[in-house]
Amino acid sequence: MSDAFTPRPEHKFSFGLWTVCNRGRDPFGDVVRPVLSPCDAVRMLAEIGAWGVNLHDNDLVPIDATPAERDRIVREFKTECERSGITVPMATVNLFYDAAFRDGALTANDPAVRAYALQKTMRAMDLGAELGARIFVLWGGREGTETDACRRPDDAIKRLREAVNYLCEYSRDRSYDYRFALEAKPNEPRGDIYMATTGAYLGFIATLDHPEMVGVNPEVAHEQMAGLNFLHIVAQAWEAGKLFHIDLNDQMPGRYDQDFRLGAANLKSTFWLVKFLEDVGYDGPRHFDAHAYRTEDYDGVRDFARGCMRTYLILKERACRWNRDAEIQAMVHANGNGSTPTEYSAAHRDALLTREFDRIALASKGLGYERLDQLTMEVLLGVR
Amino acid sequence: MSDAFTPRPEHKFSFGLWTVCNRGRDPFGDVVRPVLSPCDAVRMLAEIGAWGVNLHDNDLVPIDATPAERDRIVREFKTECERSGITVPMATVNLFYDAAFRDGALTANDPAVRAYALQKTMRAMDLGAELGARIFVLWGGREGTETDACRRPDDAIKRLREAVNYLCEYSRDRSYDYRFALEAKPNEPRGDIYMATTGAYLGFIATLDHPEMVGVNPEVAHEQMAGLNFLHIVAQAWEAGKLFHIDLNDQMPGRYDQDFRLGAANLKSTFWLVKFLEDVGYDGPRHFDAHAYRTEDYDGVRDFARGCMRTYLILKERACRWNRDAEIQAMVHANGNGSTPTEYSAAHRDALLTREFDRIALASKGLGYERLDQLTMEVLLGVR
Amino acid sequence: MSDAFTPRPEHKFSFGLWTVCNRGRDPFGDVVRPVLSPCDAVRMLAEIGAWGVNLHDNDLVPIDATPAERDRIVREFKTECERSGITVPMATVNLFYDAAFRDGALTANDPAVRAYALQKTMRAMDLGAELGARIFVLWGGREGTETDACRRPDDAIKRLREAVNYLCEYSRDRSYDYRFALEAKPNEPRGDIYMATTGAYLGFIATLDHPEMVGVNPEVAHEQMAGLNFLHIVAQAWEAGKLFHIDLNDQMPGRYDQDFRLGAANLKSTFWLVKFLEDVGYDGPRHFDAHAYRTEDYDGVRDFARGCMRTYLILKERACRWNRDAEIQAMVHANGNGSTPTEYSAAHRDALLTREFDRIALASKGLGYERLDQLTMEVLLGVR
Amino acid sequence: MSDAFTPRPEHKFSFGLWTVCNRGRDPFGDVVRPVLSPCDAVRMLAEIGAWGVNLHDNDLVPIDATPAERDRIVREFKTECERSGITVPMATVNLFYDAAFRDGALTANDPAVRAYALQKTMRAMDLGAELGARIFVLWGGREGTETDACRRPDDAIKRLREAVNYLCEYSRDRSYDYRFALEAKPNEPRGDIYMATTGAYLGFIATLDHPEMVGVNPEVAHEQMAGLNFLHIVAQAWEAGKLFHIDLNDQMPGRYDQDFRLGAANLKSTFWLVKFLEDVGYDGPRHFDAHAYRTEDYDGVRDFARGCMRTYLILKERACRWNRDAEIQAMVHANGNGSTPTEYSAAHRDALLTREFDRIALASKGLGYERLDQLTMEVLLGVR
Repeated sequence: MSDAFTPRPEHKFSFGLWTVCNRGRDPFGDVVRPVLSPCDAVRMLAEIGAWGVNLHDNDLVPIDATPAERDRIVREFKTECERSGITVPMATVNLFYDAAFRDGALTANDPAVRAYALQKTMRAMDLGAELGARIFVLWGGREGTETDACRRPDDAIKRLREAVNYLCEYSRDRSYDYRFALEAKPNEPRGDIYMATTGAYLGFIATLDHPEMVGVNPEVAHEQMAGLNFLHIVAQAWEAGKLFHIDLNDQMPGRYDQDFRLGAANLKSTFWLVKFLEDVGYDGPRHFDAHAYRTEDYDGVRDFARGCMRTYLILKERACRWNRDAEIQAMVHANGNGSTPTEYSAAHRDALLTREFDRIALASKGLGYERLDQLTMEVLLGVR
Repeated sequence: MSDAFTPRPEHKFSFGLWTVCNRGRDPFGDVVRPVLSPCDAVRMLAEIGAWGVNLHDNDLVPIDATPAERDRIVREFKTECERSGITVPMATVNLFYDAAFRDGALTANDPAVRAYALQKTMRAMDLGAELGARIFVLWGGREGTETDACRRPDDAIKRLREAVNYLCEYSRDRSYDYRFALEAKPNEPRGDIYMATTGAYLGFIATLDHPEMVGVNPEVAHEQMAGLNFLHIVAQAWEAGKLFHIDLNDQMPGRYDQDFRLGAANLKSTFWLVKFLEDVGYDGPRHFDAHAYRTEDYDGVRDFARGCMRTYLILKERACRWNRDAEIQAMVHANGNGSTPTEYSAAHRDALLTREFDRIALASKGLGYERLDQLTMEVLLGVR
Repeated sequence: MSDAFTPRPEHKFSFGLWTVCNRGRDPFGDVVRPVLSPCDAVRMLAEIGAWGVNLHDNDLVPIDATPAERDRIVREFKTECERSGITVPMATVNLFYDAAFRDGALTANDPAVRAYALQKTMRAMDLGAELGARIFVLWGGREGTETDACRRPDDAIKRLREAVNYLCEYSRDRSYDYRFALEAKPNEPRGDIYMATTGAYLGFIATLDHPEMVGVNPEVAHEQMAGLNFLHIVAQAWEAGKLFHIDLNDQMPGRYDQDFRLGAANLKSTFWLVKFLEDVGYDGPRHFDAHAYRTEDYDGVRDFARGCMRTYLILKERACRWNRDAEIQAMVHANGNGSTPTEYSAAHRDALLTREFDRIALASKGLGYERLDQLTMEVLLGVR
Repeated sequence: MSDAFTPRPEHKFSFGLWTVCNRGRDPFGDVVRPVLSPCDAVRMLAEIGAWGVNLHDNDLVPIDATPAERDRIVREFKTECERSGITVPMATVNLFYDAAFRDGALTANDPAVRAYALQKTMRAMDLGAELGARIFVLWGGREGTETDACRRPDDAIKRLREAVNYLCEYSRDRSYDYRFALEAKPNEPRGDIYMATTGAYLGFIATLDHPEMVGVNPEVAHEQMAGLNFLHIVAQAWEAGKLFHIDLNDQMPGRYDQDFRLGAANLKSTFWLVKFLEDVGYDGPRHFDAHAYRTEDYDGVRDFARGCMRTYLILKERACRWNRDAEIQAMVHANGNGSTPTEYSAAHRDALLTREFDRIALASKGLGYERLDQLTMEVLLGVR
C-alpha cells in the first residue's frame, strides 16, 4: 500500500547495519532476537524502501576475521548491495566494543592501545572506501572517564587531535576523499565522554591541520540526553558548513541512550528538525541511528524502520503546510525576520551611539508567539 | 583570624557586583535583603580579602541615569575602588533585564532592539574601559526562544556574528584592547538559549573576523545544568588558548540556575577544576558568579563570599597534596600519561598497518582507577 | 468562530488567577505586562470560554489588606464571578512569596513562622469557603533546603503532618467540607523541596489522622522537571482514589519551572494524559497552571489560555479516534490487557508451583508495540 | 593494615553477589572480567571485611538448573558462607534478564508471563529462606513501557498489587517471616518504569492487604538519576517505619544507571545520608549495590569494595565530628529545631486566629545557613 508518505530513493533514507540488526541486549537483559546477517539486513532495507546502509567495520567483518574471510564477506556484501540497489554512503569504526578499548581508544593512556585504534580506523577507512562510502564518522564512545584522576583532559584532546590529523593525512594519501564527521555524546558508556557536545567538536575542528575535511555528525539522542535543543546545534553546524552527516532518532532528556524511532519521544522538536533540514536544502543522507523496542521480533523491526521514514515524510509534508499557511507566514514576516549586515565605520558608529531609543516603545508590542506556536501545533496535529 | 586559607590579592579573587548585592528575589518570592550600594559592596569585598570586582553596566549605573548622574556615579565608584584597593578586571553588559530585550537583544527580530542592544554594549565597553577592565564578557541571556517558530536559528547566529564582529571593531577603534569572553548557558530565562554550551561558542569563535580577540567565559553552573563535565570543557578552552575568564560557582545538574557557593553542590568536581586551573597556571581572575542563599542577611553574604574563597584555597592545598602523594603519582605515571606526537609518513603508515596487536593482552591489565579515585577522595577528605 | 474545539462549561476548564494575571517577571528580568485586576481576569476567562477560576489568598487580597478592604475586595470579586458565570472550584494559600517564609512555612525552624503559616492557611480556607471552593490545594514551595545542615528532614515531615492534621480539623470544625490536594515539586524555588514527588505525598497521606480528606494535586511540570512519566503517577493517584485536583501545563525535563501552555513541550505525553483523564471519567476541574510567554501582551495571554483549552479538546477528540480505531483496538486486545485477580490458597499455590512454563515460547512472540506506537503517532498527527 | 576505618562485622556491610561478580558488560561493550564464582565471591567478601552477601536467585542458581543441581549449588554456597562467616540477610528475584520478561513480569500483558514471574519469585523466596534471609527485595526492572499504548498504567498497578498481596500470603503460609522491600527506579532498562520513585511505593504500600509486611529499599542511584534528594526520601521512609533495606552507591543526576562506589559522585550528599542512618540508629544492613569500573580486574574489584566500606566509615566519623562541633551545634540549636505538636481545640484555634504576627520581624534575621554549610564542608574536608 503506497501513499504520499512512502519512502523513495531520492529521500536518501539510510540505516546503520547495527540498527536493524540490533538484538535487544541491554544492561539488564540478554538478546531477544536471533542474528540477522548483513545481507539479510540489506534485503530488508531494500524491501521497505530505504536508500542506503551504513556500518562499523565489525558490523560486517568480525574483529578476528582472517584477511581471506574479510575479503569474502565484503565481496558478498557488495554483491548484495548492488543486487538490492542499496548504497553505502557512510562508514565508521567500532572503537568501543572490544575490551582493549575499555579506557579509551584514540585517547587511551596506553600508547599501544592508541596505535591499535589508529590502525583499526585506517582499515575501517579502507573497508568503507571499498564499499563506496565518502563520509567517515568517528564516534569516540570510550574516550572518557569515570574518574578524572586517570589523565589530564587536555592530554586527551591533544591525543585526539593527533589521531584525527593522522587520519586526514591517510585519507589524502589514499585518495579516499573522505569527509570526516565527528559525533559527540555527553556520557554512556563512560561516566563522562570527552567532546560532550557537537559544539565542542565544532571548536575542536578549528584547531585541526585540515579543518576543511572535518565536520560533525550530530545525533538527536546525544544532544537531547543533555537536555539541549537539537535544532539549534544542527543550525549552527549547517551555518558553519559543517553538517557532514546526521543521526536521526529520538530520546527523552536526562536518561540513558534510548535511540527511539524518529519522533517517538517528541513530535514537535522532530518537526522543527525535519523542517530545518528541508528548508535549507540539506542533501546528505537522512540516516536513522535507532533501534526497535526490545519487545519486537523482526516484523517489529520492519515496523520500526518503516515508522522512522514515514514520520519523516509526514513531518516534511507538515513543514510545507506551515510554509504555505498564510496566517503563519504573515506573523513570521511581521516579526521582521532576517539579518541586517552592518559594516563598522566611524560614521555608523557615531550614528549608532547618538541614536535615541524609546525603551518603553520597544517593550510594548506583544509578539504573538503564543498564537504562532499554537498554530504550529495545529498544523502538526492536522487540524489546520 | 588568619590561616593558610586566608585570601590574598595574588589569588586574584573577584566577585560580580551583582553577586554580593543580590537581594534574593526569585520566581516565587520577593527580595529579602535591602539595597547594598556599589560602594558599600566594594568596601565589603575589600574587608573580606577579595582582589577585584566585576560589573554589568546597570549594576553601577541605572539604565535611565542622565549622563551627569552616570559620570558622578562612576567617579565615586572609581574613588572607592582605589581607596579600597579593589581592581575592576572585567565588565559586561546587561542585555536581559529590561523588557525591551524580552525576545532577545543582539538576535532579536526587531532591528531597533538589535541596534539598541549594540549601542548599550558599546557604552558598557566605554564604562568598563574607564574603570580599567580589559576583559569584556558577553552573556546573551535573552538570545533564545520558547518556540522555534519565531525565527530561524541560523538567522540568530548570523545576527550574533555581525554584532560580535562590530564590537571587536569598536574595541580596536577605541584602542580598548578588550579580550571578549563569551558565556554560554543552555536555558533560563529563555526556554532554550542559543549557543547553549561553551563548546558551541568555541565553534562560533572560529567563524568571526577577529577570532584572536574572542574567547570564552565558562560558568560552572551553566554547563552543570545540562549535566556536562565542567572540567572537560574548561580543559578544551584552555588547550585552545581561549580561557579568557571563568565563572566559579556550583550547581546540581538538571535544575534551575542555582549559583551556589563554590563547592557547595559537588566538592569532587570542584576539586578537579581548582586543580586544573592551578596545574596549568591559569593566571586570570578567579571570579565568583554566585550568591548567598535567600535565608541570609548581609552577614550571611559575607560568610558566603568568604566561603567561596576559602574553599578554593583548601582545594588548592589538596591539589598540591595530590601532586605530591607518592602512591598517587606512581599510579598516574604507571598509566602512561602523556601524548606521543606522530608525524604521518609512508613509512610510519606502513609500519602501523602491519604491526601486530595482541587484543587480549591489551585488555588484560587492571588499570587501578578505583584505587586512584578512592585515594583522591581520601586526599579530599583529609585522611591522607 | 466556533468549532468542535470550542470550550464549553461542561468541560470544566479552570485557570488560576495567577496564570492569566502573570506579569512575566523572571529571575533575570522585570515585569513586561501591566497589572490585570482579578475582576478583569474573571471577565477575560468568561470571554474565552473558561468555567472556573482558582486563587491563592493573595492573588485576590493583598497580604496587608485591612479586614474592611478584604471584605470589599471579596464582595466585588464574588459579584464579578456571578455576573460572568465563573465558578471558584479551588482555593489555596500563598506560603512562598513573603520573606517571612524564606526558610519554609509549615516546616520552618522558627515556631512563630510555623504558627503564622498555619493562621494564614486557615484564613485562606475561610476565603475559599466564602467563594464556594470545595478543594483546597497546599503547595509548600518553601518547605525545603539549600543545605541539609539546617534541619533533620524527618523533623520537617513531622511538622508538615501536624499542620495538615490541624487544618483537617479546622475544615471539619468549620464544616467547610474541603478535600485537600497536596502538590509536590522537586526543587525551585528551594534547592530541594521536601515531598519532591506526588508519590511522596501519597505515602505521606497514609500517615495522616484523616487520610480520607486528603489527596493530591499532581502538576505536569513538577513531575516532568524530574524527568518522570506524568501519566504513571496520575494513574497511581487515580487508582488510589486520590486524584482530587490536577494542574495542567507543560515542561521540558531537567529545567527550571517553565509552566508552558498545555502540550507545548510534548504533544504525545499530553495526549496520553488527556486520554487517561477522559477514559477513566475524571470529573474534576481541568485546571491550567501555566502562563503566557514573556513576549506576549494581554492579547497573547488570551491566545495562550485559548490554546490550553483548544489543545485539550483536540487531544480529547484524538483519544476518541484512538479508542475507535479498529486496528489499534485489535492490537490492544491481542495483547491480553486486563487484570486476573488471584486468591491465594493452598490449591492455587501448589498448582502454580508445579506449573511448567516454556520460557522460550514466552519470549518468542513479537508484541507489535512499534506499530502500535506508530499508529498512535499517526492518529495524533491526523493522518489516520 | 588496619586503622579506624577498617570494616568490622558489626558495621553490617553487605554486597550483592552481582556487584563483585559484575563482569563489566555494558550497552556498548562486552565483558572485561572472567567469571567469579559465588563461592569465590564469598571468600573475597570475607577477606575484605564484609559481613553479608545478598543475591538474586540466578546470581547463584542458573535459570535452567535442574532441582538436583540447584540443591548442590545451594548446599555448597551455604557451606562456604558458614566457613567464611558471611551471612545472607537479603534475597531477591531476577525478573528482568530473561527474554520472557521483555515487557514486564508481574505486570506483563501475557497472563502466563505473570504466572511464571510469580512462580519464580516464590522459588526465590524458598531459596532466600533456605539461606537465612529475612528481607526480600522486589525490583521490577521490566515493569514499565516504551509506549503507553501497550497497557493502561492503572492496570499495571492493579496487577502489581495482586502479586505483592499473593507473595505476602505465601510468606505467611510458609512462615518465612519475610519483610518485603520494594525498590523503585524511574527508567532503564525500560523507557519508563512504573513506581518510579520510593515515594510512589510508599503510597502503593498503603493500598496492600498487609502493609505492615512491606517497606521500601531505596537506592541512591535510582533517586539521583531523577535528580531527587536521596536523604529526603530515606528520611520519609524511616519516619514512616518503612526503611526495610537500603542500596548504597552513587550516581550523577540525569544519566544512565552508574552504580558508582559510595561517595564517588557526591561526597556531600553521601555524608548527609550516612549521618542520617547513624543519627537515627538504622540497624539494618549497609548494603552496597554498586560495581567496579570497567577498567578494573579483580584486584580493582577488591579496591572498589574496600572503598565503599572505607568511605562509609570515614563519613561516619565525620558525622560524629559534626555532632560534637560546638559552633555547629550552637547554630543548629539557635535555629529552633524540633517539632511542637499542637492539639486542635476551639481554644487553640481562636488563639491562633487572633494572634498578631510581625511579618517584617519574622523576615529580618539572617539564618546563618551559608556559614553552617561552609562549616559542614570544612568538617568534611578535614580542616576542622
